[in-house]
Amino acid sequence: MRERRVRRRETRRGEGRAAAAVQAVEPLVSNLPLVELISPAGVEKIHQASLRLLQETGILIIDYPPALETFRQHGAKIEGELVRIEAETLLHFVRQAPPHFTQLARNPANNVFLGGRHTVFAPVYGPPFVIDRDRGRRQATLEDFHNFAKLTYMAGDLHHAGGTLCEPNDIDVRERHLDMLLAHIELNDKAFMGSVTSATNARDTVALAEILFGAETIRQDPAVLALINASSPLRFDDRMFGALEVYARASQAAVITPFVIAGAMSPTTLAATLAQCNAETLFGIAYAQMLNPGTPVIYGQFLANIDMRSGAPCFGTPENALALFAGAQLARHYNLPYRSGGNFTASRIPDAQSGYESASTMWPTVQAGVNFVLHAAGWLEGGLMSGYEKFVIDLEMLGILARYLRGIDLEDEDAFAWDAYAEVGPGGHFLGAQHTMRHYETAFYQHTIFNTDNYEKWAEEGSHDTYQRANARWKSLLKAYEPPPLDPAKREELHAFVERRRAEIGVGR
Amino acid sequence: MRERRVRRRETRRGEGRAAAAVQAVEPLVSNLPLVELISPAGVEKIHQASLRLLQETGILIIDYPPALETFRQHGAKIEGELVRIEAETLLHFVRQAPPHFTQLARNPANNVFLGGRHTVFAPVYGPPFVIDRDRGRRQATLEDFHNFAKLTYMAGDLHHAGGTLCEPNDIDVRERHLDMLLAHIELNDKAFMGSVTSATNARDTVALAEILFGAETIRQDPAVLALINASSPLRFDDRMFGALEVYARASQAAVITPFVIAGAMSPTTLAATLAQCNAETLFGIAYAQMLNPGTPVIYGQFLANIDMRSGAPCFGTPENALALFAGAQLARHYNLPYRSGGNFTASRIPDAQSGYESASTMWPTVQAGVNFVLHAAGWLEGGLMSGYEKFVIDLEMLGILARYLRGIDLEDEDAFAWDAYAEVGPGGHFLGAQHTMRHYETAFYQHTIFNTDNYEKWAEEGSHDTYQRANARWKSLLKAYEPPPLDPAKREELHAFVERRRAEIGVGR
Repeated sequence: MRERRVRRRETRRGEGRAAAAVQAVEPLVSNLPLVELISPAGVEKIHQASLRLLQETGILIIDYPPALETFRQHGAKIEGELVRIEAETLLHFVRQAPPHFTQLARNPANNVFLGGRHTVFAPVYGPPFVIDRDRGRRQATLEDFHNFAKLTYMAGDLHHAGGTLCEPNDIDVRERHLDMLLAHIELNDKAFMGSVTSATNARDTVALAEILFGAETIRQDPAVLALINASSPLRFDDRMFGALEVYARASQAAVITPFVIAGAMSPTTLAATLAQCNAETLFGIAYAQMLNPGTPVIYGQFLANIDMRSGAPCFGTPENALALFAGAQLARHYNLPYRSGGNFTASRIPDAQSGYESASTMWPTVQAGVNFVLHAAGWLEGGLMSGYEKFVIDLEMLGILARYLRGIDLEDEDAFAWDAYAEVGPGGHFLGAQHTMRHYETAFYQHTIFNTDNYEKWAEEGSHDTYQRANARWKSLLKAYEPPPLDPAKREELHAFVERRRAEIGVGR
Repeated sequence: MRERRVRRRETRRGEGRAAAAVQAVEPLVSNLPLVELISPAGVEKIHQASLRLLQETGILIIDYPPALETFRQHGAKIEGELVRIEAETLLHFVRQAPPHFTQLARNPANNVFLGGRHTVFAPVYGPPFVIDRDRGRRQATLEDFHNFAKLTYMAGDLHHAGGTLCEPNDIDVRERHLDMLLAHIELNDKAFMGSVTSATNARDTVALAEILFGAETIRQDPAVLALINASSPLRFDDRMFGALEVYARASQAAVITPFVIAGAMSPTTLAATLAQCNAETLFGIAYAQMLNPGTPVIYGQFLANIDMRSGAPCFGTPENALALFAGAQLARHYNLPYRSGGNFTASRIPDAQSGYESASTMWPTVQAGVNFVLHAAGWLEGGLMSGYEKFVIDLEMLGILARYLRGIDLEDEDAFAWDAYAEVGPGGHFLGAQHTMRHYETAFYQHTIFNTDNYEKWAEEGSHDTYQRANARWKSLLKAYEPPPLDPAKREELHAFVERRRAEIGVGR
């Protein structure tokens, strides 16, 4: 899409990189065919079931009369807080959403394209707790937020700054959004997410983006991406729709996502769960288009399922994977970018379960062609914790998957290595062959944290598991961190705005 | 294919099962579309490159003149120990292999169908070492072999007994195969693999199978499956081809598999590596058909790649996954059952790396439609160790993937849960709904070892990671083990044979 410097991945990912200036992130574009699991007739069946839910069962909008009024004005039937909408009305608005868009980053080389065969990886979003191997689990603070912002900046496989990397609980909730936004802007230069905790906070987000990019510029391409969750089943609230209203009117982008633990917020069957999620997403997308036709949106799916024995949410399950694939087909049915997946686990620490569950979500994620992958690094305990070690371990997985999506080169005749067979012959070995020398550096994915030492060497060096190796890794990254440059005048303007808002909010420091 | 008792998976998999009688294993048949990554033109390109390798570069058969003679008699060109074979000659023989076959198990309900959309999971094969969390890494013994045979018998998601579950190093190598075969037969009732350490040992395997099943019966459907590896690149040896000759003449089945660490035993590029592996596999398959047309064979691929920094083999890499998918397309191109994949890792213990790497091989494995999955449970340290904890953790992954392959039910109208929406409505919850009650027990995959407790509960109960939980699990399984019944007359006959052979071999005990 855009011109990028081509660099060797191993240079970027290796230890050497920590000390060097951080370069722009390469876009990740798949060369592989999409994996689709359900038939076109199956997609149509889910689509029709969703329309029936929207027409017959309806969606609640609680505590937010302006949205009810918007839906009424655009042809929906309102009964108390319940909105029922006909298929044609709904689809008329859904069709106004663009099939793809570019979100601006303050380093233009880090702009992200959302749609097509592009995949954008973003870090974990929302945990109230953090954990690291030394200090254990604790309430997250602004210092933690800063640390995760720094790690995100340094991660060559994270294309996006994300949003609530963890909750800075030591900052008053009324002004916390300002600190998070400043951190994204000052400590990173990738595209970031906006506050959705209230319409006021959304307005602050837009104001900061206007200072940083220019008010005109962000009306052309959005500079903010907002995560708008349904309060499933079949319900949106004032907080989310209030924030969405601000962003849509300012032409900023939104990810519309049901938040469903199947079996609790949806029926236990996948067919119904998919239809319900689809109905909720389409409803939110239609609302954004009613407010401002052409508002860039991402079709979101976030799905766990309940552990029928304990009631806890499960991640990395077969049901999650199946729904993720089906969701991708639905998003394409409406010609919209898709958000789903992440390095999900229910585990509390990055142990074997965490590895299996995270990988079991991430393989379907990239194979389904997900465009925006929130929670691609750092997620633990079903999203309650941002994990320092988990974060850098997940980066390894992202590197592996990025290489996977490049596919197999069968075009270049040199890839068939005819000269190597002539040189080596049957029974020989290829380590010193000319062909190997030519392809040595780009041959295979090279690990950062995963380790292939044999047992003896590994035991001699302390029998460190991945958790321990990751502990050393995030510390060395943070030690080497240097912030990206920021125009001092812009910085001053941003801080002036924030100080003014702090004074208005009146928490006092 | 065959009638099977239908049981609830959770009953089989849960703790309750350990004490109950072990039931026959349900076949695993995928309902999902196959994932294919390369174009038909790409398949053809690799195919043609393989034919060129076989025609021009040739394959070495070392220390085994009878095989050279067989190839000569069937139209190949022999030069010393080098065999070159024309495309049409080769493909003529490849085409004689059946597209699928059934391998007999001594419990007929455990017969396995190899081909089509069936996937057969078999345990780890070949490690000289074992490891468990209490005793660490050590030389494997016959007691370890027995333990893994018992665990394999009890595993509802392992369809096959496998072969060299670990090397019983405390038994003289000359009679070790007899102990392993007796263990498979007496401690388990699933289909097993034969000895490939020599032609003599292969003959012993066939003799034991004849006693167990009847000499006539095993000529109809094979009772032995033998793992025949190439000595890559482009080379087979007397040991493997000697064993293959015995099995092929007895109409027993063989998995023909190159053993390739790309970058060392093949060039660093995937195109060449795939062409070479394909050439080696087709060569072995053609040999089996020359010996006995119609010999059941499985098209095998075993591929790791070298760590260009350390020289160690890497598993769960993007290159492995890509090659695995491409291999499946090649096997289907020749209309043959496919063997590849497994719960591979380079890690020494079941930590996060082990989880990511294992899952990163197993997802492609089931998505590609692999028919025979050796190493589906227990593999550690690049195949040098059979791990007790890894074994039972891998079983969890197999259960997850088995559920995944069942797909999404969009046919049953009840799956859309219309009554649940009428009952619960927007904003409610589905936990107590009638629909949930109806689907409660089959709703979601239920974990055995993975655990969804929140941090507090988990910490209170000792902060056990997956490794620790798995330690308790394999012990409780072994404690509850009871052998499947075996006809005493058969047992006597088997032992008589083994004792006679021990006397002939003359190790003395």
